[in-house]
Amino acid sequence: MNLEQYIEEKAGLVNSALDRLLPREEGYHKNLHSAVRYSVFAGGKRVRPVLVLASCEAAGGRPEDALTTACAFECIHTYSLIHDDLPAMDNDDTRRGKPTCHKAFGEATAILAGDALLTVAFKLIADTKGVDCERLLRVVGELAHGAGYAGMIGGQMVDIESEGREIPFPMLEHIHIHKTGALILAAVRCGGIIAGADERRMKALTQYGEALGLAFQIADDILDIEGTDEELGKPAGSDLRRKKATYPALIGVQESRRLACELVEKGLRSLDLFDEKADPLRALARFVVDRRS
Amino acid sequence: MNLEQYIEEKAGLVNSALDRLLPREEGYHKNLHSAVRYSVFAGGKRVRPVLVLASCEAAGGRPEDALTTACAFECIHTYSLIHDDLPAMDNDDTRRGKPTCHKAFGEATAILAGDALLTVAFKLIADTKGVDCERLLRVVGELAHGAGYAGMIGGQMVDIESEGREIPFPMLEHIHIHKTGALILAAVRCGGIIAGADERRMKALTQYGEALGLAFQIADDILDIEGTDEELGKPAGSDLRRKKATYPALIGVQESRRLACELVEKGLRSLDLFDEKADPLRALARFVVDRRS
Repeated sequence: MNLEQYIEEKAGLVNSALDRLLPREEGYHKNLHSAVRYSVFAGGKRVRPVLVLASCEAAGGRPEDALTTACAFECIHTYSLIHDDLPAMDNDDTRRGKPTCHKAFGEATAILAGDALLTVAFKLIADTKGVDCERLLRVVGELAHGAGYAGMIGGQMVDIESEGREIPFPMLEHIHIHKTGALILAAVRCGGIIAGADERRMKALTQYGEALGLAFQIADDILDIEGTDEELGKPAGSDLRRKKATYPALIGVQESRRLACELVEKGLRSLDLFDEKADPLRALARFVVDRRS
Repeated sequence: MNLEQYIEEKAGLVNSALDRLLPREEGYHKNLHSAVRYSVFAGGKRVRPVLVLASCEAAGGRPEDALTTACAFECIHTYSLIHDDLPAMDNDDTRRGKPTCHKAFGEATAILAGDALLTVAFKLIADTKGVDCERLLRVVGELAHGAGYAGMIGGQMVDIESEGREIPFPMLEHIHIHKTGALILAAVRCGGIIAGADERRMKALTQYGEALGLAFQIADDILDIEGTDEELGKPAGSDLRRKKATYPALIGVQESRRLACELVEKGLRSLDLFDEKADPLRALARFVVDRRS
């Protein structure tokens, strides 16, 4: 299969849907809506929404049923970047080669734009037509869990607290599994839920999602060292400057790369019970460790 | 009926449920959970959750079915206060007589605690047992709408933008209806949805909620002028110092009070088709304009 073409097609669907579903830049709330759209359409790779769609397909579902949920995941991801970049958090000036949201719109608007994206994610799921409400409600719960205090936000909290400190490996693993892995896992699981996957398949998707989520953040750590500013759309080496705990810092680049590849192989094995409809998921797993940005 | 006793009883139920449902102050995410609990248990009046429960009862539902949704509204309300108080927003040091969340835990933790409360609200609804999933999904949508860009967050955006500026009355009305009214309206509507209220009753609850929501913020504006620091738990007169657009500033205290009372009467009239089970809602409407904090 041609993954590049697959991602392009699915990302195109997601972008059109986001454009249709997010508020226009007009009315009393114009600045808020501009900040929301500025950040959402800053050129992300759409990894999480593509995972939702690919997972739904793998489990025999119709990807169009998962489209609003896919958009919801991108909204959550984008909000987390906006809040992460704030001066009180990572204090980043550029993101994807452009000024960060608070640099372009001011800090108050950036905080509110993040809040708005976090909130609208759940509205998109609730407003979905033609999908069983029991499945949609499970999706709401999965997303809130993966993005919440026991997932992404919890991971970010520990990540910030451990900046500049030497932390033990289990704590670093905890950070990565939560700050990045939890949302990726939820994306994969939600695709399965919308498709109505049985327990066996949900278990397999969960194993795949867990492996992929951790591999993704390890690959990110490596990219921060090996990527160029241009490839990353932000200054490379920022983890090092910020004394962030990373896999390369703790176990070296080579061992980190080995671990990421091992995780991808593990993720691929858990897809053994799926047929060729899971080929996009398989290709995405490899992409996660091979990408250059 | 004895409203004070009613509020005390319902607020007690909400507080116990919140204590049970929110994460403990332990583990890797301890500081995050502490900040969440610090803000949630800082002594709010629980107006929004009590409205959810009272509205559910008025429409013939069982208040216990609405308890998690009631908690969700308090989580959303608390998150909005935490983010509102941030230096980039209102920059407030005290809230309910205690240091604001960012003063007590630092800015990064406060941002994340707000995000966590916003996210967990939807998880509480999704995890609700024994209530029809179609109703719960509608509740998710109502809450996301009322709290989102077309509701509370939109209102806050315009509120911040109009600070220190003279704004026309329709814009002030827009701010109040959105920044405060939308969440109160959603609380009243969600109680009705969980009770399975028919269209006629939902329309009546909507009219009540709209009137009450606007009256609530006008009463807040008046309290900021007439209340003492002690009553308010924060410095009185802060709207004036901040040159915030308020009803008293635009149309005077007396006219503001008259308008709030008129709104309450309007809200009460829309409850005419309900029996005595709506008495708590009726008493709450009067309480909103009579309260001293």
